[in-house]
Amino acid sequence: MRSDNNSGVSQEIMQAIIDENHGLSEAYGRDDVTKCSEDALKTLFENEDLKAFNLISGTAANSLIIATISPTFGAIFCHQHSHVYGDECGANEFQSGGAKLIPLKGHNGKISPLEIEDAMEEFVIGEAHHSQPSILSIANTTEAGTVYTPDEVHELSKVVKKHNLKLHMDGARFANAIAAVGCSPAEMTWRAGVDALSFGTTKNGTLGAEAAIFFNDTEDGSFIYRRMRSGHLVSKMRFISAQIIAYVQDDHWLTNARHANEMAMRLYQGINDTPGINFKYPVQSNLMFAEIDEGIREKLWADGFRFYTHKAAGVSNSRIVTAFNTDPGDIDRFVEVANA
Amino acid sequence: MRSDNNSGVSQEIMQAIIDENHGLSEAYGRDDVTKCSEDALKTLFENEDLKAFNLISGTAANSLIIATISPTFGAIFCHQHSHVYGDECGANEFQSGGAKLIPLKGHNGKISPLEIEDAMEEFVIGEAHHSQPSILSIANTTEAGTVYTPDEVHELSKVVKKHNLKLHMDGARFANAIAAVGCSPAEMTWRAGVDALSFGTTKNGTLGAEAAIFFNDTEDGSFIYRRMRSGHLVSKMRFISAQIIAYVQDDHWLTNARHANEMAMRLYQGINDTPGINFKYPVQSNLMFAEIDEGIREKLWADGFRFYTHKAAGVSNSRIVTAFNTDPGDIDRFVEVANA
Amino acid sequence: MRSDNNSGVSQEIMQAIIDENHGLSEAYGRDDVTKCSEDALKTLFENEDLKAFNLISGTAANSLIIATISPTFGAIFCHQHSHVYGDECGANEFQSGGAKLIPLKGHNGKISPLEIEDAMEEFVIGEAHHSQPSILSIANTTEAGTVYTPDEVHELSKVVKKHNLKLHMDGARFANAIAAVGCSPAEMTWRAGVDALSFGTTKNGTLGAEAAIFFNDTEDGSFIYRRMRSGHLVSKMRFISAQIIAYVQDDHWLTNARHANEMAMRLYQGINDTPGINFKYPVQSNLMFAEIDEGIREKLWADGFRFYTHKAAGVSNSRIVTAFNTDPGDIDRFVEVANA
Amino acid sequence: MRSDNNSGVSQEIMQAIIDENHGLSEAYGRDDVTKCSEDALKTLFENEDLKAFNLISGTAANSLIIATISPTFGAIFCHQHSHVYGDECGANEFQSGGAKLIPLKGHNGKISPLEIEDAMEEFVIGEAHHSQPSILSIANTTEAGTVYTPDEVHELSKVVKKHNLKLHMDGARFANAIAAVGCSPAEMTWRAGVDALSFGTTKNGTLGAEAAIFFNDTEDGSFIYRRMRSGHLVSKMRFISAQIIAYVQDDHWLTNARHANEMAMRLYQGINDTPGINFKYPVQSNLMFAEIDEGIREKLWADGFRFYTHKAAGVSNSRIVTAFNTDPGDIDRFVEVANA
Repeated sequence: MRSDNNSGVSQEIMQAIIDENHGLSEAYGRDDVTKCSEDALKTLFENEDLKAFNLISGTAANSLIIATISPTFGAIFCHQHSHVYGDECGANEFQSGGAKLIPLKGHNGKISPLEIEDAMEEFVIGEAHHSQPSILSIANTTEAGTVYTPDEVHELSKVVKKHNLKLHMDGARFANAIAAVGCSPAEMTWRAGVDALSFGTTKNGTLGAEAAIFFNDTEDGSFIYRRMRSGHLVSKMRFISAQIIAYVQDDHWLTNARHANEMAMRLYQGINDTPGINFKYPVQSNLMFAEIDEGIREKLWADGFRFYTHKAAGVSNSRIVTAFNTDPGDIDRFVEVANA
Repeated sequence: MRSDNNSGVSQEIMQAIIDENHGLSEAYGRDDVTKCSEDALKTLFENEDLKAFNLISGTAANSLIIATISPTFGAIFCHQHSHVYGDECGANEFQSGGAKLIPLKGHNGKISPLEIEDAMEEFVIGEAHHSQPSILSIANTTEAGTVYTPDEVHELSKVVKKHNLKLHMDGARFANAIAAVGCSPAEMTWRAGVDALSFGTTKNGTLGAEAAIFFNDTEDGSFIYRRMRSGHLVSKMRFISAQIIAYVQDDHWLTNARHANEMAMRLYQGINDTPGINFKYPVQSNLMFAEIDEGIREKLWADGFRFYTHKAAGVSNSRIVTAFNTDPGDIDRFVEVANA
Repeated sequence: MRSDNNSGVSQEIMQAIIDENHGLSEAYGRDDVTKCSEDALKTLFENEDLKAFNLISGTAANSLIIATISPTFGAIFCHQHSHVYGDECGANEFQSGGAKLIPLKGHNGKISPLEIEDAMEEFVIGEAHHSQPSILSIANTTEAGTVYTPDEVHELSKVVKKHNLKLHMDGARFANAIAAVGCSPAEMTWRAGVDALSFGTTKNGTLGAEAAIFFNDTEDGSFIYRRMRSGHLVSKMRFISAQIIAYVQDDHWLTNARHANEMAMRLYQGINDTPGINFKYPVQSNLMFAEIDEGIREKLWADGFRFYTHKAAGVSNSRIVTAFNTDPGDIDRFVEVANA
Repeated sequence: MRSDNNSGVSQEIMQAIIDENHGLSEAYGRDDVTKCSEDALKTLFENEDLKAFNLISGTAANSLIIATISPTFGAIFCHQHSHVYGDECGANEFQSGGAKLIPLKGHNGKISPLEIEDAMEEFVIGEAHHSQPSILSIANTTEAGTVYTPDEVHELSKVVKKHNLKLHMDGARFANAIAAVGCSPAEMTWRAGVDALSFGTTKNGTLGAEAAIFFNDTEDGSFIYRRMRSGHLVSKMRFISAQIIAYVQDDHWLTNARHANEMAMRLYQGINDTPGINFKYPVQSNLMFAEIDEGIREKLWADGFRFYTHKAAGVSNSRIVTAFNTDPGDIDRFVEVANA
């Protein structure tokens, strides 16, 4: 329950890796499988013009996208609790050559159009003393475990366009957001105004495969060089590409995400009324935060359950994550122990 | 009244520049005058072990100091309205190779020890996902025009030391702070725990001369290379050095700063009770902020007075700055018009 | 025969990946398997004090090592045809924040002590206008396919130490060099004065696993942050670590490399006397360069053989690489066709 | 004779600085004088569409221009002995975020079209492993003291255009080149295909004033932000601008440069036939290199003459530079001592 990264690899994905291990193949993504993985994403997103680049980590996807679509003197708006702001050790500042990430508050982990308007007031466009606003980066699923609907994304995109920004979506848990909302990937992204997506799969059952996806001609031809010079062009790319193909095939990604979301809801329903447990945000995906009394935490810990608890200013905040292969029996046991 | 940068060069400083223009001299700071300017600063700060490096801009001083004493993956705490955070177009992120500036709130432009403690709670030391806190950067005079006392600086330095940070002071208006408090430069800096100081002179009567000053062996030998590769090693350095010598000679710098502060106080006393004028922060230096009714602003503007007014969320904020050569008659006229 | 990257994954390595896929495990390298992989490298290198960090690409290993052991204003000596100089799209300049790579000539792809002495004469230590020499980076196996002996490395290390440089070895084909020389990994590296090694495995049978290895306390604690902020901390690290463990187990790495080297020697012996084929450098590993007449090249191509041929100034240069799984029958067929 | 940077400021320039010191003026280059200085350069270069940005150092001009017109993954061709390559401590790599400078040999300090063609053969356009050639940077006057004619520049520009590069000219001693050739600034630059010029004045009589000049719409709007975030937007810009205006007024710059060039020629003619003195390159500007016997050097040194002598591989190389205010009597004395 600590992190969806702790889970291993689904059988379907592992089989795809094994099956890919035959014969010789062009290295560095010049192979046919990599071509196919981009085609698979075009089909999934109903968009023949997107460009997709396979990568090995979500931080690579986020930071390389941001470096590609922001000037080096840009300002990127993001949530104060977002991964790009606080959990990538300055990756976005580094890859972009010193762009500035501006933290916004945002209720329930979600940024509102008004907050962007307020943030814009601090910047004078064309004034050399100011970093120049370039991107709004949102995460969907958010770091609070909440989910933006396509309509909400679209509302943000209007403000984004008004101010000539680009809209980036960190989709480390994109599948969980889609599973939660029930819309299509296209509706959640380019049709709602998203310019670039970090398409994550690793938290949802692959060994390690992420894709930087650009819509709307926002990729200027520099990505392949940025990827190489940051050490992110892996030689045996086809093994990443094969994972992506298997991931989107036969709704494998959605099946995995739906299961994870269901397990979260099952847990939520089981402990929401438990005295000593208070959920911080609406539970909408596979990621939950709750204040849990120390006594309950100790019981869970003693029973073998592991999860992060962050303490600050006398308040604790526990982070519970379900995964594609979470056992319902484990959820039920968690509920049982918590309520004991 | 718009900015102390708009004022020219004092007669003493200009004469020093003229006097320096004779014969040949070693370029790039290898000359005797530059050696003398460092000695003059050692005397002024009562510290034989400091290292001082002359520069042409305050942003260069701030960002090169920060790049020198922070790792490239560091986090620098600063005020949300500070120059290093919001008015240097990302210079500190750039020079440091991607370090992160963390904005703190801070009442009246001043950061409190508690705010640092709170900010530290967001970072886990040794956790690779987190930028590692490295510096507290305060400005004295602050961007609100308020002034830290040596005691306040000392209190901050205790928290700084506790967390193994370094303490940087942006002294773009250092002279005004010293003039306001009446302490010695040593008391305000290294004796209070400051590790590095951006010693500004340009806003207080020089043509262009700043110094990056390091106390406590915090300079690791890299500064001369960082200065050169950022294009900040000027060839005819002696003309900068001569300004610094003249600046600290015979209390010229203090005389200038006291005058500017007095002019500010004269203005404050003249309009503090004026209906339609509300000062935002205590007036302690040569920099003031006030909400001024539009009618009054229009009268002042019509009479030739110029100052910035920032409007956001329906509230205006006018920034008034006096300088070493502000004419008392102009202050009196300002007061007269405002009260008319 | 185009590249050892084109080969797939050995059965032993693939099995290790499959076996690793069970239960939950800490993400981001905090797991036990990753601890074991470092231990395995300590044993292999007979060095309990080394530090090893797993990565996904050789360019990441090279550039992160260089950024860690060079100041940002450093100068890194390397061969003009080396991968770090010409085939990483400026990765080392990027990761280091602007360090400078200085190309040296070097007979047969190998740099001599004298060439370093000559190169040093262009730099004045302590002179701010000059990048400051910080590293000698050699590749072993070299990009010419030749191999440094431990004695040769040791001779280089003397010059390196004399000038206070660090010695980095790019070991993308480290196994082939060890197999060629027949010495121990320790003899080739830290006992010969190497400070840091890019330990490559991907070209020799793994799916994707490299390690940055530091000897002699040259790692200052910054590597984990540099790895994270460049997006190279993969979440399911244990799958990389498992590959490294299997790679060094039971001499699997040496078995693979010996086979590749033998295949190269078999090819060399079969075509060395062929009219129209001239080898450029001594054949010592699994990498060979030869000028091959167009007629012969066309015959080989028609028979299905693929390899790169670089043409410049009227001269062609073909690059032939054997791998851990090269079929001897293919070599014999290549010889047959070339001699037909 | 050590460096033209060692000379002071001409009377005309100093007077311009003094005259500029009156009243209030907008800071940060928003003043009228700065507008006039750009206009003066437009007139001088007969080009209403150029964009000029004032700076304080030649390294700032070079590196900011290169960062503006090269992608961050670019390769910049330059002479192996050029200032941008070897004397700026990696400034161009730093400002550009890691672009690569490629050293070319070039007879007499001048690069030939053929050398560019040869260098291009090492790069595959569109290949992600390779830095992508972006700029040819030449110096005029070169670091050997030789001068390109407009025809030579034009020939280079043809190769440059053929390969979609940009042509940058480092004009730290631009005035001396123009004085030597007798052409117009326009003929030497944009009419010959130059895209951007570092227009130096500091070595030729100003206190400190350089301009980055862009022709042919090569500036994309990013320069003002790059200048600010690197700390190069000086607050009292008008004092730099006033120098540039005075510099180009009444041919002051040409008068200065012609004098320096004449002094060099006078020296050359006086010692060219002296046994024990061998000039390395044709003497065409104010910068000369000669092998001078140790005995002669000692006599000159004893007589008070100072100049750099670089020794490598048993050969000495003395660098002699004349300036706008070099005394003919000193030249004659130098000749007398050398021939004594």
